[in-house]
Amino acid sequence: MLDDQSLGPIRLSSSAHAALRPAGIARIDGGFWSERQRINAAAMIPGGFAQLEQAGNLENLRLAAGTASGPYHGDLPFLDTDVYKWLEAASWQLARENDPLLTKRVVEAIELLSAAQEPDGYLESYFQVTRPGEQFVDLKWGHELYCAGHLIQAAVAHSRATGRPELLQIARRVADHLVATFGVDRKDALDGHPGVETALVELYRETADERYLRLAEYFIDRRGHGLVGDGKFGREYWQDHTPLREAQFATGHSVRQLYLLTGAIDVYLENGDETLLTAVVRLWEDMVATKTYITGGMGSHHTDESFGEPYELPNDRAYCETCAAIASVMLNWRLLLATGDTRYADLAERTLYNGFLSGISLDGTGYLYINPLQVRDGHGGRPGDHGVIRAPWFRCACCPPNVMRLLATLQHYVAATDGFGLRIHQYASGEFGGMVAGGSAAVRVSTEYPWHGRIEVAVTATPGNSWPLSLRVPDWSGAPTLQVNGESQPADVRAGWVHIDRSWRVGDRVVLDVDMPVRPSTPHPRVDAARGCVAIERGPLLYCLEQTDQPAGIRLDDVAIDPAAALSTEDRPDLLGGVTTIRTTGVLAEPADQGWWPYGTARSDTRPVELTAVPYYAWANRARGSMRVWIPLAGT
Amino acid sequence: MLDDQSLGPIRLSSSAHAALRPAGIARIDGGFWSERQRINAAAMIPGGFAQLEQAGNLENLRLAAGTASGPYHGDLPFLDTDVYKWLEAASWQLARENDPLLTKRVVEAIELLSAAQEPDGYLESYFQVTRPGEQFVDLKWGHELYCAGHLIQAAVAHSRATGRPELLQIARRVADHLVATFGVDRKDALDGHPGVETALVELYRETADERYLRLAEYFIDRRGHGLVGDGKFGREYWQDHTPLREAQFATGHSVRQLYLLTGAIDVYLENGDETLLTAVVRLWEDMVATKTYITGGMGSHHTDESFGEPYELPNDRAYCETCAAIASVMLNWRLLLATGDTRYADLAERTLYNGFLSGISLDGTGYLYINPLQVRDGHGGRPGDHGVIRAPWFRCACCPPNVMRLLATLQHYVAATDGFGLRIHQYASGEFGGMVAGGSAAVRVSTEYPWHGRIEVAVTATPGNSWPLSLRVPDWSGAPTLQVNGESQPADVRAGWVHIDRSWRVGDRVVLDVDMPVRPSTPHPRVDAARGCVAIERGPLLYCLEQTDQPAGIRLDDVAIDPAAALSTEDRPDLLGGVTTIRTTGVLAEPADQGWWPYGTARSDTRPVELTAVPYYAWANRARGSMRVWIPLAGT
Repeated sequence: MLDDQSLGPIRLSSSAHAALRPAGIARIDGGFWSERQRINAAAMIPGGFAQLEQAGNLENLRLAAGTASGPYHGDLPFLDTDVYKWLEAASWQLARENDPLLTKRVVEAIELLSAAQEPDGYLESYFQVTRPGEQFVDLKWGHELYCAGHLIQAAVAHSRATGRPELLQIARRVADHLVATFGVDRKDALDGHPGVETALVELYRETADERYLRLAEYFIDRRGHGLVGDGKFGREYWQDHTPLREAQFATGHSVRQLYLLTGAIDVYLENGDETLLTAVVRLWEDMVATKTYITGGMGSHHTDESFGEPYELPNDRAYCETCAAIASVMLNWRLLLATGDTRYADLAERTLYNGFLSGISLDGTGYLYINPLQVRDGHGGRPGDHGVIRAPWFRCACCPPNVMRLLATLQHYVAATDGFGLRIHQYASGEFGGMVAGGSAAVRVSTEYPWHGRIEVAVTATPGNSWPLSLRVPDWSGAPTLQVNGESQPADVRAGWVHIDRSWRVGDRVVLDVDMPVRPSTPHPRVDAARGCVAIERGPLLYCLEQTDQPAGIRLDDVAIDPAAALSTEDRPDLLGGVTTIRTTGVLAEPADQGWWPYGTARSDTRPVELTAVPYYAWANRARGSMRVWIPLAGT
Repeated sequence: MLDDQSLGPIRLSSSAHAALRPAGIARIDGGFWSERQRINAAAMIPGGFAQLEQAGNLENLRLAAGTASGPYHGDLPFLDTDVYKWLEAASWQLARENDPLLTKRVVEAIELLSAAQEPDGYLESYFQVTRPGEQFVDLKWGHELYCAGHLIQAAVAHSRATGRPELLQIARRVADHLVATFGVDRKDALDGHPGVETALVELYRETADERYLRLAEYFIDRRGHGLVGDGKFGREYWQDHTPLREAQFATGHSVRQLYLLTGAIDVYLENGDETLLTAVVRLWEDMVATKTYITGGMGSHHTDESFGEPYELPNDRAYCETCAAIASVMLNWRLLLATGDTRYADLAERTLYNGFLSGISLDGTGYLYINPLQVRDGHGGRPGDHGVIRAPWFRCACCPPNVMRLLATLQHYVAATDGFGLRIHQYASGEFGGMVAGGSAAVRVSTEYPWHGRIEVAVTATPGNSWPLSLRVPDWSGAPTLQVNGESQPADVRAGWVHIDRSWRVGDRVVLDVDMPVRPSTPHPRVDAARGCVAIERGPLLYCLEQTDQPAGIRLDDVAIDPAAALSTEDRPDLLGGVTTIRTTGVLAEPADQGWWPYGTARSDTRPVELTAVPYYAWANRARGSMRVWIPLAGT
């Protein structure tokens, strides 16, 4: 059945203030992302459950339920969210594919949550087990509302994906408890970690209960008035230094800031308060223009996991938490829905293919929490190497199940309807469709993206009248070429879209070809950390040099790009699960002996060197070694 | 009386394995450093005493003595060392100049220490007051031996400077307690923070009691065998990961590493164990070639105050603790004494004039704990601003009294004897002398260094026979010119020295002129953080651009050096206590609007801009604003 009601993570209410609505039909069934979804289902989600059992997250809930005894596992107050995010991912996965074993595990986890929940609806095993009687007391660091948010998102997912009510009932009791507890005339307080806002809006969408939307509005409105207060990192850390509508700069803990903006735009989508949209766009522009890595990653400081100062973007000490990349995709998707502006789809694409995907090993068994853009020659076995070596899980395991839930829903991020026609804003092979002018429409997309820029779109369902099919032209693309049913047409790109408006017939075929030359990209001149360097990009992919691909015996830090040398591509189906590499003849500049002091008049002995770049997302899947995204230009 | 026995911080034993020995006559009485010593005496040392009273350090000792009651002030275990370092500085200052009020304060502090000391010799107010019964239990973090080291150094200073025994008696009781407690067959353990080693060697020099030298040897030999063990930053943090003689790289907490090396070279100087010298030189070469800023500063990481990886030298996030600069000067001086190699004097000079002196405000009332090489445009009021704004004192106030003790002894770092003649290795106006072949010799040095490169040396005492006067030619200098009694002579520079061997007569005059052109210095190509940039140097001084000296309205981060433009000097007696500025016509490159994404093909609109650089040591003495040491080269 063709339907315009998305069964994905966002189901806008009928009155939503959205330029676009998620496509009701959304299925990826081939190509690049299909393989990632397959690995998510085959390795990551099952592996995640085992990790939750091993790390004690499930046992902690049994402690809260009174069905087990012993010490609490771990010392973080938000360990339940790993279970919730896994449940969300598993539920979305069940919508994609039946899996009795996975269903059994999900049902058992839900029964465990039901047993652990307090009569008043409260549910957070850490406080129930280790700090009973302290509920909603330590809101700065307790993460209780953050936990509730992830539970609610899992419950909405489970309800939409399976049609079953059990988890949603648990989540509503949690949410009702929050509604009863928090408010200007009740407990006037906020969580130290935003996140519940977006969940409450989605719960409103799922239930039509406006109290949840009102509570989300309250949490957005009250932040910035010092209700959270000071902490060791200052009020900016949790965005409590200034009200969102007055804030000029993206600041503080990156994931907190991004989740807050995501929640604010969700509130805007439902209540139409344009002061929120204006504020979120303003902070997005500051964040993207001055505090975002070329990977799409965000967060420059390790200590407080925060945005750095404008243009403070160190490559080696980049934080770029995988969760921040996920939060950025969530935010950009909502901004795309709100505005239809392709820049949000452009950044989502960049983040998905680079700063997000780098967080997952090719086989789905290892993760990066931190996603640096450089590993220096001589990087040693220091504390902090979790940014260099993939781990199967983390003590603070927020990223892995967050990755799983995004991968399990990725098909929903691809297409949208705009009231008139269908828009394809990300490129993946599959079927996408929804309500267009006059009825339901659907298309099949076939593409070898991101390796090749040819995108074929075949109409598989259409009403009798005409409607526009709109295809996004990525920001990195030059002028694309367009064919409709084999005939070339001018590709008239308007604000990032090619619109093709006609009376479609089933079987009609559109071919959009976006050019994918190798692009040596330069940094903004204020980005000190990348001065005199270029990054190699092709299509949506950012490339890097890994030590292991270069001639033996050279130091990667002595390598430079020759601006006069050609950059050629080579398809390597044998390498890293199948990639296109980029090769060039660079310059190896080995520093001449300068004596004991490394400053003065530098001299180097130079000779040509064959260099091979691989996609950044695939780094750290082989022998440990140095890596660079930004490569010096010879002569600087 | 002419004497070859230095009354400074190092008094080598007669059998010491030293190429050079500190000059017995050492007095700075004019010029650049004399003014700093004046401020040290007039403002810093008196101000320090007031801060110690205000911060509670002295009250803590009263608590330990039982003459006061109340809570312990502060939560750091090494707060007594602030008192010890101040006592050391005050004692050295009393050797320079009589001061009854200062004497009174010193005597009172010593009486307080005497009252606080336990019958067994133990003295550390933190453990005595807050953790009685836990002595030498928490050696990882307790700093008890580190504290003892600073007490011993203060006691040696007080003994040498005043001839009075009281503090030395207290220190010997502390040291004897250590001797009785620690050893392979006693408590086989080490302090988490090296420092006691150098103090024990000096106490051996002062007392001729070999037990202290043996204990220092023990502490050096046993480190690296895991006796300290793991901590949150790993064993490298306190250099307990590998024995010193096997270590290949300078690692871990910078000050700990530098104090350890200083102690090791002190042990070498007395016992002649060349395996120690070899190891220290190896680590020095690694450290200086790959982990040292152009300021001479060391330490790239804030979190663990550690050296970074090789060539990891971020300018904005430089740690460069003032104490690390002091420790480096201490180490380099000892290495110079051990070897006579001028590279140690070169690095000491660089560090003194730049990375050390930047830690002190011009008026001696404010300090920097952290000495960054860049403050970015838009640097906000974040936690960590103590690297940007000078403070009168710190919660962890290790740096200010450390500064005071180095300034109060600076004259001892200027000249040495080599068994044949006299060597001048730093340049400051004053009188210096000691035992040369045939008897005692002395010279008067007159110079406007570091502003002008003319150094006049007049012989004021000499035996009848000939002896060599050796003058160091700094590594940054080209070929110097030399006159003896008004006649030009070839300046034959051998391994960094000009040797003039003749039968001197009182009144003989030598003039060495070292050229001081403005030098645009480039970084080692592996220093990513300075790629495409130059630093401006002149003589021993490093320069920087401060926002306040540039035309109004420009962003310092948009400024570039035009390599074709002249760099001219201007003497500015009115500015920053009197400095020579460096001016040039640079390029202001204002980024053209690139839309929302800061990467791609950068474009800038350029126009000329007049730039004024000031000495780095004088930065952060005026309006708060941005600052850069490394300045982009136009066109990169």
